[in-house]
Amino acid sequence: MGQHRVVIVGGGFAGLAAARALGGEAVAVTLIDRRNFHLFQPLLYQVATGGLSPADICAPIRTVLRRHKNVRTILAEVTGFDLAGGRVLLADGAVEYDSLIVAAGARHHYFGNDSWEPLAPGLKSIEDATAIRRKILWAFERAEREPDPDQRRAWLTFVVVGGGPTGVELAGALGEIANDTLRDDFRSFRPEEARILLLDAGEQILSSFPASLGAAAERDLLRLGVRCLHQRSVTAVDASGVSVRNGDRLDRIETRTVIWAAGVKASPLAASLAAAAGLAVDRAGRIPVTASCTVPEFPSVFALGDMAACAGDEGKLLPGTAPVAMQQGRYAARVVLDRLANRPPPPFRYQDRGNLATIGRHSAVADIRGHHATGLLAWFLWLFIHLLFLVGFQNRLQVFLHWAFQYTTFNRNARLITTNALNPPQCSANE
Amino acid sequence: MGQHRVVIVGGGFAGLAAARALGGEAVAVTLIDRRNFHLFQPLLYQVATGGLSPADICAPIRTVLRRHKNVRTILAEVTGFDLAGGRVLLADGAVEYDSLIVAAGARHHYFGNDSWEPLAPGLKSIEDATAIRRKILWAFERAEREPDPDQRRAWLTFVVVGGGPTGVELAGALGEIANDTLRDDFRSFRPEEARILLLDAGEQILSSFPASLGAAAERDLLRLGVRCLHQRSVTAVDASGVSVRNGDRLDRIETRTVIWAAGVKASPLAASLAAAAGLAVDRAGRIPVTASCTVPEFPSVFALGDMAACAGDEGKLLPGTAPVAMQQGRYAARVVLDRLANRPPPPFRYQDRGNLATIGRHSAVADIRGHHATGLLAWFLWLFIHLLFLVGFQNRLQVFLHWAFQYTTFNRNARLITTNALNPPQCSANE
Repeated sequence: MGQHRVVIVGGGFAGLAAARALGGEAVAVTLIDRRNFHLFQPLLYQVATGGLSPADICAPIRTVLRRHKNVRTILAEVTGFDLAGGRVLLADGAVEYDSLIVAAGARHHYFGNDSWEPLAPGLKSIEDATAIRRKILWAFERAEREPDPDQRRAWLTFVVVGGGPTGVELAGALGEIANDTLRDDFRSFRPEEARILLLDAGEQILSSFPASLGAAAERDLLRLGVRCLHQRSVTAVDASGVSVRNGDRLDRIETRTVIWAAGVKASPLAASLAAAAGLAVDRAGRIPVTASCTVPEFPSVFALGDMAACAGDEGKLLPGTAPVAMQQGRYAARVVLDRLANRPPPPFRYQDRGNLATIGRHSAVADIRGHHATGLLAWFLWLFIHLLFLVGFQNRLQVFLHWAFQYTTFNRNARLITTNALNPPQCSANE
Repeated sequence: MGQHRVVIVGGGFAGLAAARALGGEAVAVTLIDRRNFHLFQPLLYQVATGGLSPADICAPIRTVLRRHKNVRTILAEVTGFDLAGGRVLLADGAVEYDSLIVAAGARHHYFGNDSWEPLAPGLKSIEDATAIRRKILWAFERAEREPDPDQRRAWLTFVVVGGGPTGVELAGALGEIANDTLRDDFRSFRPEEARILLLDAGEQILSSFPASLGAAAERDLLRLGVRCLHQRSVTAVDASGVSVRNGDRLDRIETRTVIWAAGVKASPLAASLAAAAGLAVDRAGRIPVTASCTVPEFPSVFALGDMAACAGDEGKLLPGTAPVAMQQGRYAARVVLDRLANRPPPPFRYQDRGNLATIGRHSAVADIRGHHATGLLAWFLWLFIHLLFLVGFQNRLQVFLHWAFQYTTFNRNARLITTNALNPPQCSANE
């Protein structure tokens, strides 16, 4: 006993990177998650559109960490933090720590309109993805049996709100479904009659990219049948459609399928941790952190990933991406070990390796330290980098081959409407 | 129009075989199912034990039938039959037929103890499989955090009720999980401490096989850590365990995980169809049929597969298996076409190609027209025959390669506890 106890909350990119970096070291690590699997979120849109199965982008946390005998995984719900007592509070107990790493992620954000969530689900969890998959497939099924042309048009209209990478990837995959996957599947309409609209609040989709790449992505989307509508903001979502502010006008779009990709908000655990430390969270619910990724005044408590407001080199907050989370996770592990060895740890420096978004199966846009790429070249880059990220997985060969296989044959076999197919899908979390 | 209208209820093995046999013929076919996918039931136990994903053993019905332009698929719930009016009644309408093929399958059967279902789920649907998967994985997770040895032992005790092929396959897969898959995953117990009990009512498991093969299967199971208990009948199931009659004694087994594989009962649509025809169903809820697989007095109405009581060559009822269903489906299609061509159709003759059950990943038992095989040879036979069955699938190459791959690498990646992992899994149909 007497070993330094590190407790990690969350088995996402940050938490898992920290746990792996601490594996085999002379510390006793406990990783707490309320799910038994790690989710590879960048490919979640593929599950939402029936291209991959949930298990394809999930890895049991225990399996990822099985070789690290000093790491224990427990499935439990964290309810709060006792920073003075050095304890993480669970729904059914508590765990003591010497160092604490909290990386509980984020959920989607409706900016005060939480009542829209059942009508316009977001995409953050496996349950979200299968709920959206159900909603999309159900719309095509309903259209097949709908005699009224206006109603049918509403069932065949898909609205994606938010022109960031998630919205662009979802809209692109929807375009592929309509143009390729479902071709020949229906008898009363042609799937390419589907209307896919991407509503963006700004002047350009993918606003984190240079303007030329946003324009390239928009051209690619158009080829897949996706229309981008700029400077639109949603003012209402109801069962029959969405109301959209378009300059001075208020437009109405009749649709049965709205998908929300317009914003994220940190896990409520960010606010719990902030409250325990006497701090306030920012508008996106994130907790402020120091240059060492720790909670101010609590040097042994780290907050990482999407739930932390961490300033980058130019003082701009780092984006909520997997590379940021993974680098922070490895960094936090290093700080813990450095301190135990009485080595002064350096501050956190994010290595920006670039920015990528994929549009459908054959195209992407890439901005790698100022070098731009589009089309197939960028897509291969996207594929290569996503496989690099996977290298930490126990079964990387299996995952790699399976994905390569899915990508080349690709007819979206995971098109299951589960739960009772005949109840119009509410986007409650079942699946 | 004026084309002969064939309505098929059910997209299982029988219904799909009939639809494919009628594809391209001069008849207008409507296939009605309440799910959008065909389920390859023989591998359902692999989903229940985390070896395969739901989408691996499901194929969207529309995709399977996409090339047959005379076949229309609708997603709808059948509520009854108007045989005088020639109509199938739906929850939201009706469909007229000239010939009707009903093949709605079966569910599990608790012999009057339906209250056991939430505690001892059966394995018939994808939702059943993911509920059982959740229950099994949850038990290991709970055992990891349980300090009391008796409680832990109850969490690590798994009871499979029923020594038929489904029970044997499930118990074998459970043995593999405990002995191979989860090795090294837990810290407070060794997974091989798990106790897996297969309760069988008779003298021999796999009672439809010769005694020597049942004994071979039992030896294989024992090697995987599964104990078979014979002449046991369950008298009660509750939250803390099962009560079992053992001769004159009443035994008590403390367990948190009971899986029901002891019997099946025909879909309620068998009773609806029987009532519409003025007939009674048998004890297993099946409707009696003629030598042409039709409902007595209604020559244009076929009842096929697990929901029909169809006599074989020696007057014994045919078993509820995929080969019977597929042969009946093709036969019904042939009868419809023969009649339209004024050819007298022959009576139905079942071609028994043998009987197979698999035990774990490297062994099986086979009884092929009196030739017996066990062990690895039988297992390869099982694999080969299951792939033959799949030949009808659009993407047989993809499915084949994927399965071959899963089988060779096999570390049961689909180990997801979905829905809220922290609510002890009730086996309601969500997933």
